[in-house]
Amino acid sequence: MPTVTGLQVDQAFCERLFADLLSFSRDEPGVTRAAYGAGEERAHAVMRDAGLALGLRPEVDAAGNLFLTLPGRDPDLPCWMVGSHVDTVPHGGNFDGAAGVIGGLAAVAALRQSGLVPARPVTVAVFRAEESVWFPASYIGSRAAFGLLPAEVLDLPRADSGRSLAAHMRDLGLRPEAVSGGAAHLSADRIHGFLEMHIEQGPTLDAAEIPVGLVTAISGSVRYREAACFGRYGHSGAVRRSERSDAVFALADLIAGLDAVWGELEAADRPATVTFGEVSTDPSLHAFAKIPGEVRFCLDMRSTEPAVLDAVESALADLVARIEAARGVRFALGARTGSTPARMSAGLVAALGRHADRLGLAYRTMISGAGHDTAVLAGQGVPSTMVFVRNQNGSHNPDEAMRIEDLCAAATLVAHLVAEA
Amino acid sequence: MPTVTGLQVDQAFCERLFADLLSFSRDEPGVTRAAYGAGEERAHAVMRDAGLALGLRPEVDAAGNLFLTLPGRDPDLPCWMVGSHVDTVPHGGNFDGAAGVIGGLAAVAALRQSGLVPARPVTVAVFRAEESVWFPASYIGSRAAFGLLPAEVLDLPRADSGRSLAAHMRDLGLRPEAVSGGAAHLSADRIHGFLEMHIEQGPTLDAAEIPVGLVTAISGSVRYREAACFGRYGHSGAVRRSERSDAVFALADLIAGLDAVWGELEAADRPATVTFGEVSTDPSLHAFAKIPGEVRFCLDMRSTEPAVLDAVESALADLVARIEAARGVRFALGARTGSTPARMSAGLVAALGRHADRLGLAYRTMISGAGHDTAVLAGQGVPSTMVFVRNQNGSHNPDEAMRIEDLCAAATLVAHLVAEA
Repeated sequence: MPTVTGLQVDQAFCERLFADLLSFSRDEPGVTRAAYGAGEERAHAVMRDAGLALGLRPEVDAAGNLFLTLPGRDPDLPCWMVGSHVDTVPHGGNFDGAAGVIGGLAAVAALRQSGLVPARPVTVAVFRAEESVWFPASYIGSRAAFGLLPAEVLDLPRADSGRSLAAHMRDLGLRPEAVSGGAAHLSADRIHGFLEMHIEQGPTLDAAEIPVGLVTAISGSVRYREAACFGRYGHSGAVRRSERSDAVFALADLIAGLDAVWGELEAADRPATVTFGEVSTDPSLHAFAKIPGEVRFCLDMRSTEPAVLDAVESALADLVARIEAARGVRFALGARTGSTPARMSAGLVAALGRHADRLGLAYRTMISGAGHDTAVLAGQGVPSTMVFVRNQNGSHNPDEAMRIEDLCAAATLVAHLVAEA
Repeated sequence: MPTVTGLQVDQAFCERLFADLLSFSRDEPGVTRAAYGAGEERAHAVMRDAGLALGLRPEVDAAGNLFLTLPGRDPDLPCWMVGSHVDTVPHGGNFDGAAGVIGGLAAVAALRQSGLVPARPVTVAVFRAEESVWFPASYIGSRAAFGLLPAEVLDLPRADSGRSLAAHMRDLGLRPEAVSGGAAHLSADRIHGFLEMHIEQGPTLDAAEIPVGLVTAISGSVRYREAACFGRYGHSGAVRRSERSDAVFALADLIAGLDAVWGELEAADRPATVTFGEVSTDPSLHAFAKIPGEVRFCLDMRSTEPAVLDAVESALADLVARIEAARGVRFALGARTGSTPARMSAGLVAALGRHADRLGLAYRTMISGAGHDTAVLAGQGVPSTMVFVRNQNGSHNPDEAMRIEDLCAAATLVAHLVAEA
């Protein structure tokens, strides 16, 4: 097969699309595009218009996922798929998700502009509802695209509105009944490979001054979104240490205990993260001079290794039992959700590495601690990987940053890969 | 001097007054009587009416403290003073504070009913604003009664209304200008001794099945009401442990560190308490999948020994510095407030003990971990102590309990003391 060279990604094309998104997404500090909300819907419209202008064929499935396809020379060959999502966390940044869609469109635009028609169709996928802060479930859009979304997820309430996923789908003219019935728009045997460009959500690439990372595995998670610890309220000055049931001290024990377990894992070079993103005593009952009788929290534990997730979850159970006995408190961890770690395609990582070498683009291989729709496609047996783009300020925050030229480098890499095979 | 015997405290009198208070203070769960609010004001009116019905002489000072005096045989002798406060924490109980005022009135009623006229005047004091949850300052009423309230306290906002102490005083027709000018209604040389009955705020007496406690010392405190820890928000899955600035992990370190210091003090039998009564990440920025970049908390540290307070505060400073360096976070402890530990009068404790023995009333001596207006009077050189009444469910909570017969036993003890000397 001939080596394609010299594909050029148009930086101004990317900048215009990011500016379009920003124009309706500002929600100071940062940007907000709620899953199945007005922001995500407008972002889909922007991507659809950009795809139509490139001559791509649009398709929308029952769950509202958008697919924009550049025909290949052989319509019978399984397609390349490139994409990501365009929803954000509340007060997040403009890049998490959107960069992968805009990068995909830019890669296709580069093919178009070169006049080259690739062998396979190339589809840019715009998945719905990837940010699980809105509905307490992971990968809603991509799972629905494969007909895999459990029917009960349609009944989950959105965090801001309290209305169900099904109701929000209906608001947008989508078909929740088909989703809950398992209608599948995608099937793994029709996808040759999946590539998701995404800002790196940690500081590793930026610190190492490397523009892109090739992802070898995606973390799975164990999550408790509505956990609580119950003790006994009392006067802050009048109950001895040994006689207290202090919910905050108990939670501090749990945090310190899981931190110690995490420290041991890190020392043994086993990947994990542990996060208590929300913690709060009860504003209607707590007081400065009261022993706190209740504290609510959420807990997110992740690893690319199932055995590590098991180890952390087992440490959690041990700690809870030990702290309950020692402190006279009761933990109620609430509903457990989670996702399975995913291995990326070693063949795709190697192929991208060869193209990067040829293009003179520095890269490293790395894991993704965050979950991504790519995990769903990998789980379906689609050879998949992600191209991380270095960014300066993490993600899920108002200060998300990314140099557009770094995204263009990633898109150039992707364009060369899909042009060839 | 002759021994007085057979004074009888009227239990029904006490029950009626508690029921009167409850009738306008319910705020489920529990009761609320805000300092300088409608609840405290009505409670003062109830106590005033009860005092007038007993023939006591009412006086109200510039800060709204109420004094109800039974004349003695010799008007030139310094008075006995018995009393407490009638404000409560939000959603607290009906007994913290009120029991000391009702017990004082019941003791005076017992003298009245016996026909005995004591040598000295006996004054029932109803102090304002003892619960420091409303305004961030301790002992507002009793300090003002001695002309000791710093002028800047008048500018502090009340936690619920945001309006200043001076404004709330004016609402009730009081004279904040006189308070800030240092007008004193009380002077130590005109008070022979001060006695405050109060529910025990811990479980010690109830567990030991002893109805009353005689207090030998009152804790002082070091307090940070608006402390915070600042880290850096980030994606919960994508930032390694060593690269995080996680505000919640840092706070857990601080809590665990102070708990360890407290445990050592307790093992060495040195009295202290440490409480983080309110803890919260920022609801407008926190999220399930975000590393928390900020957590707010308040911290209350108490001891009857100045050296222990110093040791705990020094441990706090060490921990803050160490955690900041280790976690890449910044603590902002905010304004420091506090109060000085107070020694009770050994002579009064001994005299009460002798009366208790004669009355066949079991008692123990103990410290008060909570602060009380008694600390202000002791600090002014008034021989002072407290009589704790056993109670079943702690204080500052909706489940506060106390057997009225235990309060009557305490009031009987107090009545016999003030009848004699």
